[in-house]
Amino acid sequence: MIWQIVGFGAAFLTMFGFLPQVIKIYKTKSVGDISILALFQFVIGILLWLLYGLHLRNAVIILANSVTLAILIVGVTLYFRYRKKK
Amino acid sequence: MIWQIVGFGAAFLTMFGFLPQVIKIYKTKSVGDISILALFQFVIGILLWLLYGLHLRNAVIILANSVTLAILIVGVTLYFRYRKKK
Repeated sequence: MIWQIVGFGAAFLTMFGFLPQVIKIYKTKSVGDISILALFQFVIGILLWLLYGLHLRNAVIILANSVTLAILIVGVTLYFRYRKKK
Repeated sequence: MIWQIVGFGAAFLTMFGFLPQVIKIYKTKSVGDISILALFQFVIGILLWLLYGLHLRNAVIILANSVTLAILIVGVTLYFRYRKKK
């Protein structure tokens, strides 16, 4: 029971881990210190996790990585929007 | 075989996902656009993944999350070092 909570907490926190960063970018419209290489590396990595989850037919891997990928795509979109404004 | 590569690639890319961001912070000494909330959320989330991996005695979960946690701790340390310099 306690370990289910630990596992669920781990999945929940990391799944939404980029959300505060994306909210900060949205609010400040500033991305100068953000590493787009890190964002791209996560996009490709999470995409591979998603494919792997689909292969394993593991609902938890599919769901968690779909959420993270969606948040990352918003982040990358905002990055290019606000980088252009300089 | 192809799916092992996909899984390995996914683990490798996300495990080192924060490395380009930490290198950028180290080079620019600028962290104004970084969300410390996101970093903290990942530290706690990855710490829970590590505990969960220890509970499951799963070497892959333990190794991947130890590496990510180490990189994140460097990132958080640099964040506070360079935030103070303003």
